[in-house]
Amino acid sequence: MNSLPAFTNVLEAAERIRPHVHRTPVFTSQTLNKLTGAEVFLKAENLQKVGAFKARGACNAVFALSEAEAARGVATHSSGNHAQAVAYAAGLRGIPATVIMPEDAPPVKVAAVRGYGARIVWAGTQALDREQRLEAVLMETGAIFIHPSNNFHVIAGQGTAALELLEDIAALDIVLTPVGGGGLLAGTALAVAGSSPQTQVFAAEPQTVDDAARSFRDGIIYPPTNAPTVADGLRTFLGDMNFPIIRQHVNAIVTVSEEAIIAAMRLVWERLKLIIEPSAAVPVAALFEHPGVFQGRRVGIILSGGNASLDVLLW
Amino acid sequence: MNSLPAFTNVLEAAERIRPHVHRTPVFTSQTLNKLTGAEVFLKAENLQKVGAFKARGACNAVFALSEAEAARGVATHSSGNHAQAVAYAAGLRGIPATVIMPEDAPPVKVAAVRGYGARIVWAGTQALDREQRLEAVLMETGAIFIHPSNNFHVIAGQGTAALELLEDIAALDIVLTPVGGGGLLAGTALAVAGSSPQTQVFAAEPQTVDDAARSFRDGIIYPPTNAPTVADGLRTFLGDMNFPIIRQHVNAIVTVSEEAIIAAMRLVWERLKLIIEPSAAVPVAALFEHPGVFQGRRVGIILSGGNASLDVLLW
Repeated sequence: MNSLPAFTNVLEAAERIRPHVHRTPVFTSQTLNKLTGAEVFLKAENLQKVGAFKARGACNAVFALSEAEAARGVATHSSGNHAQAVAYAAGLRGIPATVIMPEDAPPVKVAAVRGYGARIVWAGTQALDREQRLEAVLMETGAIFIHPSNNFHVIAGQGTAALELLEDIAALDIVLTPVGGGGLLAGTALAVAGSSPQTQVFAAEPQTVDDAARSFRDGIIYPPTNAPTVADGLRTFLGDMNFPIIRQHVNAIVTVSEEAIIAAMRLVWERLKLIIEPSAAVPVAALFEHPGVFQGRRVGIILSGGNASLDVLLW
Repeated sequence: MNSLPAFTNVLEAAERIRPHVHRTPVFTSQTLNKLTGAEVFLKAENLQKVGAFKARGACNAVFALSEAEAARGVATHSSGNHAQAVAYAAGLRGIPATVIMPEDAPPVKVAAVRGYGARIVWAGTQALDREQRLEAVLMETGAIFIHPSNNFHVIAGQGTAALELLEDIAALDIVLTPVGGGGLLAGTALAVAGSSPQTQVFAAEPQTVDDAARSFRDGIIYPPTNAPTVADGLRTFLGDMNFPIIRQHVNAIVTVSEEAIIAAMRLVWERLKLIIEPSAAVPVAALFEHPGVFQGRRVGIILSGGNASLDVLLW
């Protein structure tokens, strides 16, 4: 499949994954509106299966496989939510899944992947280690690789969150997501362009890892920096399948400080009573750091996930 | 009003407060079901206005006042969620509210009460200090006292959470709440008896402060102990208005350990992605500590509130 996904693929994904994912609620907060000057609608993908929107793309990719493909099983490399999502989806379809994980992956995530019945293959601590190990696994098993963000059906599946948001909330001026690998952003852009073309699409990423903003500006895919960020799930490349979609349909990518991410995360915990992970706080932080863009607008945000560590508080 | 509230008053309350409170969602968790052996439905009153079911009773009491009564304003003593709830409800109706608070009340709660426009009167650190100060305020201002739990309209209002739960989820075997002052439990008992009489009503409280369980057993209202509990919102008396209702309609009150409360709270944060306060974790803990009662049953739980401290983690 060499073509790019389109709006119709998001609609197909919505049908395909409906039995397997939650239609998540949309929350509002008078406090958040008062503090930001925007009218904010939070799509709670932290309450999604596996605790993140990643369940959508993984289910779409796994259930789009033909019987013959499915019989070969699936594989991916991820230390985060996509690993759990692929394990979850493969478990539902009853096919083998192999997840290549770094040796320093958090035990709770390892346990979750195992709990869904996937096989774990360990591979050092670097992305390159995982990619090499993945190649070997694909050769050995013939499994189908499901990339976390640069995959036709993953992009289409991630777009279903925005599709639901636009169905539930009329006349949004802006839809705003975090951006890491670009799968959620590209899927969201397709959903918005197809179902509410007058709505703008913005993305936010940490200042310390601003590769997506620079890539968007220059039209070249830059690698992420190695700088630390509390939103470490966003330290990933854009890809050749999602980048053209992002360039075509996204209005702007803004960056936010680490302090603003942490403050936004605490605000959502405290006032919305929702556990969100740092990556999900990134677009909320953008409301505070870019008031000129968002004040007076109706802004829908994809709260991307809730798999935060509960062992330490970031504030 | 000397009579006890009845089911019809819960129905009236539901109509009266509908414009002012959220119809909160009900969540399920396969993990929680697997771990407890019960089929659990969590009514998320942590997502309610002011972060707790208390908004229901306070709105019902404030909006049930005649114009003449309302003009006198309202008053209450509380260091917790009821204070915010009365301030919120009075603000909506545009009438004065006075809240007697202890001098050691958490600054975040003080700010919330002020934010809703209520006047705060400080009164030592003991319950007796607050009651004496309240008497003086009522004499001075002529305000109507809204008791946190032993008040006709508060009890009826709190019952609306269970009413909604029973509308949304069919054929519950048990509805389970925390019990402190008894307002939520009595209101829940009325709602269940009136709309789903085959459903049983259970309550849970901390072992260290088991006055409700002993009172229920002996038919006498005992004062709470001074023993510490993480669920300190539950360290309050049953009252002469809610106790007869509880005795008539409640099947049993069980107790839970501090360790189980903390573990249940963490489980809900981690798996449901919902911030709940320790009092709300008490009924969840009961599922684990009393498996003989709950296993194999469809159990609806009122997750009473989400106003947990985010400065320290209890685990």
